[in-house]
Amino acid sequence: MALKSPKEFVDSLRDGRVVFYRGERVKDVTEHPVTRRAIDHVAADYRIAEEPEHRDLMTYVDEQGQRHSRYFKVPRNADDLLRRREMIEASTRAGHGVVLLIKEIGTDFLFAMRAVATYMATRGKPECLARLERYHASCQERDVAMAVAQTDVKGDRSLGPTEQAHPDYYVRVVSRTEDGIVVRGAKAHTTGSILANEIAVLPTRALSEADRDYAVAFAVPPNAKGLRMILSPFSEAAPSEFHHPIGARHKIVDTLTIFDDVFVPWERVFMDGEWQYAGAIANTFVQFHRFTAAAYKLPWIDLMVGAAMLMADANGITRANHVREKLARLINYRETVLGLTKMSAIQHRMLDGGIAVPDPVLSNAAKFHFAENYHVMVRNVQDIAGGLLVTGPGEEDLANPETGPDIEKYLGGKKGVPTRDRLRLMNLIRDMMASEIGGYHEILSIHAEGSLETQKLTMVREFDAKPLLEFTRRCAHLGE
Amino acid sequence: MALKSPKEFVDSLRDGRVVFYRGERVKDVTEHPVTRRAIDHVAADYRIAEEPEHRDLMTYVDEQGQRHSRYFKVPRNADDLLRRREMIEASTRAGHGVVLLIKEIGTDFLFAMRAVATYMATRGKPECLARLERYHASCQERDVAMAVAQTDVKGDRSLGPTEQAHPDYYVRVVSRTEDGIVVRGAKAHTTGSILANEIAVLPTRALSEADRDYAVAFAVPPNAKGLRMILSPFSEAAPSEFHHPIGARHKIVDTLTIFDDVFVPWERVFMDGEWQYAGAIANTFVQFHRFTAAAYKLPWIDLMVGAAMLMADANGITRANHVREKLARLINYRETVLGLTKMSAIQHRMLDGGIAVPDPVLSNAAKFHFAENYHVMVRNVQDIAGGLLVTGPGEEDLANPETGPDIEKYLGGKKGVPTRDRLRLMNLIRDMMASEIGGYHEILSIHAEGSLETQKLTMVREFDAKPLLEFTRRCAHLGE
Amino acid sequence: MALKSPKEFVDSLRDGRVVFYRGERVKDVTEHPVTRRAIDHVAADYRIAEEPEHRDLMTYVDEQGQRHSRYFKVPRNADDLLRRREMIEASTRAGHGVVLLIKEIGTDFLFAMRAVATYMATRGKPECLARLERYHASCQERDVAMAVAQTDVKGDRSLGPTEQAHPDYYVRVVSRTEDGIVVRGAKAHTTGSILANEIAVLPTRALSEADRDYAVAFAVPPNAKGLRMILSPFSEAAPSEFHHPIGARHKIVDTLTIFDDVFVPWERVFMDGEWQYAGAIANTFVQFHRFTAAAYKLPWIDLMVGAAMLMADANGITRANHVREKLARLINYRETVLGLTKMSAIQHRMLDGGIAVPDPVLSNAAKFHFAENYHVMVRNVQDIAGGLLVTGPGEEDLANPETGPDIEKYLGGKKGVPTRDRLRLMNLIRDMMASEIGGYHEILSIHAEGSLETQKLTMVREFDAKPLLEFTRRCAHLGE
Amino acid sequence: MALKSPKEFVDSLRDGRVVFYRGERVKDVTEHPVTRRAIDHVAADYRIAEEPEHRDLMTYVDEQGQRHSRYFKVPRNADDLLRRREMIEASTRAGHGVVLLIKEIGTDFLFAMRAVATYMATRGKPECLARLERYHASCQERDVAMAVAQTDVKGDRSLGPTEQAHPDYYVRVVSRTEDGIVVRGAKAHTTGSILANEIAVLPTRALSEADRDYAVAFAVPPNAKGLRMILSPFSEAAPSEFHHPIGARHKIVDTLTIFDDVFVPWERVFMDGEWQYAGAIANTFVQFHRFTAAAYKLPWIDLMVGAAMLMADANGITRANHVREKLARLINYRETVLGLTKMSAIQHRMLDGGIAVPDPVLSNAAKFHFAENYHVMVRNVQDIAGGLLVTGPGEEDLANPETGPDIEKYLGGKKGVPTRDRLRLMNLIRDMMASEIGGYHEILSIHAEGSLETQKLTMVREFDAKPLLEFTRRCAHLGE
Repeated sequence: MALKSPKEFVDSLRDGRVVFYRGERVKDVTEHPVTRRAIDHVAADYRIAEEPEHRDLMTYVDEQGQRHSRYFKVPRNADDLLRRREMIEASTRAGHGVVLLIKEIGTDFLFAMRAVATYMATRGKPECLARLERYHASCQERDVAMAVAQTDVKGDRSLGPTEQAHPDYYVRVVSRTEDGIVVRGAKAHTTGSILANEIAVLPTRALSEADRDYAVAFAVPPNAKGLRMILSPFSEAAPSEFHHPIGARHKIVDTLTIFDDVFVPWERVFMDGEWQYAGAIANTFVQFHRFTAAAYKLPWIDLMVGAAMLMADANGITRANHVREKLARLINYRETVLGLTKMSAIQHRMLDGGIAVPDPVLSNAAKFHFAENYHVMVRNVQDIAGGLLVTGPGEEDLANPETGPDIEKYLGGKKGVPTRDRLRLMNLIRDMMASEIGGYHEILSIHAEGSLETQKLTMVREFDAKPLLEFTRRCAHLGE
Repeated sequence: MALKSPKEFVDSLRDGRVVFYRGERVKDVTEHPVTRRAIDHVAADYRIAEEPEHRDLMTYVDEQGQRHSRYFKVPRNADDLLRRREMIEASTRAGHGVVLLIKEIGTDFLFAMRAVATYMATRGKPECLARLERYHASCQERDVAMAVAQTDVKGDRSLGPTEQAHPDYYVRVVSRTEDGIVVRGAKAHTTGSILANEIAVLPTRALSEADRDYAVAFAVPPNAKGLRMILSPFSEAAPSEFHHPIGARHKIVDTLTIFDDVFVPWERVFMDGEWQYAGAIANTFVQFHRFTAAAYKLPWIDLMVGAAMLMADANGITRANHVREKLARLINYRETVLGLTKMSAIQHRMLDGGIAVPDPVLSNAAKFHFAENYHVMVRNVQDIAGGLLVTGPGEEDLANPETGPDIEKYLGGKKGVPTRDRLRLMNLIRDMMASEIGGYHEILSIHAEGSLETQKLTMVREFDAKPLLEFTRRCAHLGE
Repeated sequence: MALKSPKEFVDSLRDGRVVFYRGERVKDVTEHPVTRRAIDHVAADYRIAEEPEHRDLMTYVDEQGQRHSRYFKVPRNADDLLRRREMIEASTRAGHGVVLLIKEIGTDFLFAMRAVATYMATRGKPECLARLERYHASCQERDVAMAVAQTDVKGDRSLGPTEQAHPDYYVRVVSRTEDGIVVRGAKAHTTGSILANEIAVLPTRALSEADRDYAVAFAVPPNAKGLRMILSPFSEAAPSEFHHPIGARHKIVDTLTIFDDVFVPWERVFMDGEWQYAGAIANTFVQFHRFTAAAYKLPWIDLMVGAAMLMADANGITRANHVREKLARLINYRETVLGLTKMSAIQHRMLDGGIAVPDPVLSNAAKFHFAENYHVMVRNVQDIAGGLLVTGPGEEDLANPETGPDIEKYLGGKKGVPTRDRLRLMNLIRDMMASEIGGYHEILSIHAEGSLETQKLTMVREFDAKPLLEFTRRCAHLGE
Repeated sequence: MALKSPKEFVDSLRDGRVVFYRGERVKDVTEHPVTRRAIDHVAADYRIAEEPEHRDLMTYVDEQGQRHSRYFKVPRNADDLLRRREMIEASTRAGHGVVLLIKEIGTDFLFAMRAVATYMATRGKPECLARLERYHASCQERDVAMAVAQTDVKGDRSLGPTEQAHPDYYVRVVSRTEDGIVVRGAKAHTTGSILANEIAVLPTRALSEADRDYAVAFAVPPNAKGLRMILSPFSEAAPSEFHHPIGARHKIVDTLTIFDDVFVPWERVFMDGEWQYAGAIANTFVQFHRFTAAAYKLPWIDLMVGAAMLMADANGITRANHVREKLARLINYRETVLGLTKMSAIQHRMLDGGIAVPDPVLSNAAKFHFAENYHVMVRNVQDIAGGLLVTGPGEEDLANPETGPDIEKYLGGKKGVPTRDRLRLMNLIRDMMASEIGGYHEILSIHAEGSLETQKLTMVREFDAKPLLEFTRRCAHLGE
């Protein structure tokens, strides 16, 4: 197959998976209006891969002449990473700023697991690498949508897996048989699980020897027996395209994913008990994934900058000094995040197995710059837009002949900008930055792909201080 | 009467006022579920005035021995202002952090208008003061709920009233008769208009002589002929008290308020054509109102700090250094806003007519500190709470026996904190800071009571630099 | 005596004290030009106490009708604290923004030690309180200048006193006799020690039982045998009043203070081995001292604001928007620090012995606001002044007929501002904010009176969260 | 010649140039100790060009096989710009973090002038380009040191050149002859003028037709008749290498540069009256120069980061959480400035004449990030170092046998770090960040290469918003 059509993708999701939404079992995720909206959103990945103008970016031809989704291509150099960044940006742009994340994160896992398994192979554990390579090839061949479940529910965050009130706060192996392992536990906020073909699972942190049973990485299909997904109802938008130009059509889905003694055959087990490598796989995955994050944020930032500029114009305040100051901050924000992301690809490091990973200091700097300043940038856009964002009339008031003309008359802005366009800009900004979806994106900015603290820790840990310390010692005449 | 009961207040709102909501005329604001929620919310003002523990704070006894709502008491000294601040805090606390604003803003107008009218009286315009005093007495006697409509819709913000595409972008007098004036135009985001007994109207900015017809201040009842209110549908919360512990019960209502040739009798006109004083009334009102703002923000900030602390405890991270850092920032935020607000009362200035106004530099510093840092404080709370804020399950999932036990088991935090309480804390934080309501409050933080820029301008304008310039000149030996 | 004259003060310093400066023994601190500058600077305290316009502020009359320096008055209420703040401000203003610190810090120690000793007395240790009271009375009677040595040199900051490479990194008791104790160790950055009549010593941190010998508080005269003071050469300014309008006349002196087996008679020992109270005295002293800090910063901030305003005017940029923005930030900074400081006095707490201490959350918020933002405010002033701050000509170039006219002609600014005054403003700003003294003040801002971290810790520790947690629990329906 | 030796460079400076320092004429800049220090500092450029390990970086071989300083190579692509950045970094590293700036800025001028002159040539003004090309070739052939004088003294900043109190506040042409022009005026803070072989002069801002005589660009030798340079005495350090490890050996020199009717032959005039291009040359020069700035800041930042790390270790606080936080901020700062600078080279734009200029949005973002955060980064380093920075003893106290052993004993830090090394680190930090030099660098951070405001303006002006606005319009359904 190698490349699925959007229809094939949608069809592939009717497989009996167990999904709950607002207290009810969702019979068929392709039919329920909420899940269907999310599916249509991510199907854009398959759609644009077929479009002539995106085809060369979204796909690649392997040495055998077979065309595949470019997501599955193992990055070997800066150009691979730059193209990957561009591809993620393009697909997110197809989602009007909302990431699709059905291949980005899954392949982040595949690359990281491959690098760690290669390393494990050099330490006398060759079987994981072999399985991972077969799994990778199969995923590519089937052109699957993938979710990754990493974050354990964790219970008391100050305690490790074995110190918790019950032992299942972190996903663990409860038994092993000749055929495979049985896992139990739950993972929080698994994005895209309900519309994936594969769910990959990996540890969320470094582990000690006592945590051996928690050092487990594997993949299961979403209809695996014992797997239950509880879909979060938050960030739902009303279906008004006027009020929710983004949210009415684009949607990220997250689940609490429960592994109720799920059996996983050995062929799909990539780590089982090798606690020494739990930290490595957790961190390596994150290195790839923060780059993905920095890449997919761009279209959303572009909408923030663009909406601020158009709104300033509609309000007639483009020349106000404080507005120019805010626009400068927004532009600077965009360019810094984008510039550092690209630079992290260009200054990549090479992992075991000849896999290129974006420079972790720079990719974390990019993600950190995005995350730490997001709320302030939201404030800047809201500031430019004005209070009408949340005190304005509804779509139905515009349609009502008793009130519509008042609104048309009184809510106009700068001459030449139609009132309706001014309201559409308000709606875009509110939808993105002052609504359920707005709240979702604020949380996403600081919690997705690791918190602010983890990014700072990574920068300190990965920074190569040696040349700089040597230079300082010399300039300070230390030891003289 | 002097003091209304909650029931009397509700009854007073059935007067034929013209209110639209989502494209439909609201027949009776006391019956529509959305407006009723807002009415029940603000009725707390009348309720607590009757409670023994609040009575002395919420009311006062005048020289004739008559008890009135304390809101109407003209502040004469620091103690009056401190008590007023405490009263506003207490009533907002009764609203669980959501301001009631049915007397706060109206009396801010009465005090400011009184001071300016007193000044106008010394300039040969005595009639406005006399009318205002009668109006003030009547409002107090009837114990009315009041809204204030100040912000004009403004059109192109870079242009003045007379330069706009049409002349009605600012409210103006279109004709004058022996009995009164006729006004036309619209005011944006009028808070509480649909549940007030009086709507006071004043200019939004300083005006030039050419803008004479825009220099108009007056009051009308909400059922005045030609007055239409379009109620904003934004910041509506679902009626789940589990998911929306604040929003399901408390609600601020804002309207686009249209004056379609509304007649106002002279007795209710407080400024008509005195363009020289337009800036004075706009600014003086705002001086009182920023103090009100700083006062009513406190319970909301308290909920932010309290939720962050309880959430940190429930997650087991109270001792993490970055959490302690964030809690320190939150505490510092609260104390700074509160400390500066109180200090502005203690260092008040005296206006014409012996009216005490909070020190404008300090009250603006308090409001500015609140507004500029709000989004970052939101980020701090969201950071402590975690991603589960927006990826967690719904109330119905907890009730469903197929999923409820999973949730109970897996979403527990620190031992001893019930899972349900942990989820309630998540819900509180999401309701306040990552939802429609959360977006509303972000906008409110920077746009209500004047924008960030206006607060900076006020501080520069009102700052008494003389002693400090003299000291600097001396230390720098200028002129020597 | 009760009140010393400036001359009596200077005379009192010729007592054989051992002071080193740049490798040489200073024979007489009143004669060496550097120490003399510092002495003349602090003598202002005695001078203004004699001036009619300051006398009532700088002194008070006790119940016996005796007039004393107000510094020694134990604060009993808000008014005492507010007057104390005003007095500290006035004396620092006499120092042109540079704190005198010859009574401020010493009396901070006396008040704190008195409160802790009172508490110790209730725990069966009455002798310390009695000695302290006699010592306090004697200091007041002799109108002494006092220094306080708190910060131990500390060695490895991650280790406690007994874990260090040698046991003397914290000052400790090495032996006890019938007559007193013998102490050894060194204290860092003791301000004013070389020009004090008394040096009080106290622990720098909480201690454990093993640290018993480090739990020592006492006072010695600066000429005590075995006491050596090494005066720091940093922050010296050239004696040009043109280039250093502040630094050429005002100077803070700090020493490394070495206790080489100094004997202290029991009458001057206020704590010896009571390790349980070491944290209490360290913290209580700091509570008083942070208030002192917040008080004495004001004149310096005033000079920053004033210099920025006058400089903006001289450069002709007062109306530039970014300049107004920076002035607004500076004004806001000043008002916030001052407002919170005053509020901490008004909301004081009562300690054992009926001693009023400023509210520690507010005084720390004031100090923290000052310290965290100081460098950015410096940047704002430097930004307004321009690069000429450090690329301009010297005083001698102005005097040189070959270059003076060029400078007069070309370095003029706005018409009406003499070139020389513009340069004087440049000099003031450079002297304060871009010189040795500027560096000193940056360090002072973050390290004097405790670091940024200690202020955050104090706010968290001292904050009364109970009412706010209760309110949050109620609003979140916890436990329902 | 093509490459000068350090000695040839020094010799070339004995040419009778008129330099004043502290009121006296400097007879020979190579002999006066202050100017000699600055000359030895910049001579490093010639020295390292001869070193085998730097030769390929610092020089290039042209098409005729002639080796030249790489500075003079016109950048044609990303690689040229990246090498240039690396070269500037390397030479600044040779200056121990202090930029040399004897070829960086001059060639920035040559490239910008060449691009603008090329453009002017297409507009019918070919002679400037021809002269510039000859001048460029000559500068390269002679391997000259160059200074650039751009910033006029400006007088009242709110007024243009012709509105000032006298007409010479901006450099202007006072007469023209057959042989050349005569210029009058003064330029502020001309870096390196006293030790250059050429001084290039260009306008500081866009000009109007009335300002025609101010639209002048040219080059003169420093000994031109009528040229006087007043060397600024600020940022002088004492010659102690212990206390001033940087400042005792490295020095930037700035002058007030006076053009007292200086004659310039036509061959050296590159613009005369073409006011339409004044803005273009001012801006284009700055585009190159901000990239230079971002490049030369790196070694200084490296010293900040390195000193903070080594100091944290010496104090035993590397593991303290707040220290790790500060180190993370410092690392992030370094990586962001460096990453954006490199990216601006990679994403260069092409100017007229096929000259590659770094992307102005990114290079300004790099410079802005550096400048806006510099003071806070200084605070972070100072915070880690501690108060001893400015209260510690002098070098002579260490040498004195009466005090040296005390200092050795008491000012030790973590075991294993010699006391003297700990003090050397203190000295490095104070020298760089809390001294005359520290003040100089703070001013430099915000004023050199354009102020914070100009960088924001440039980002807004140069940002290509079109694609992003188009995307926003589509997502918001504008015009539908």
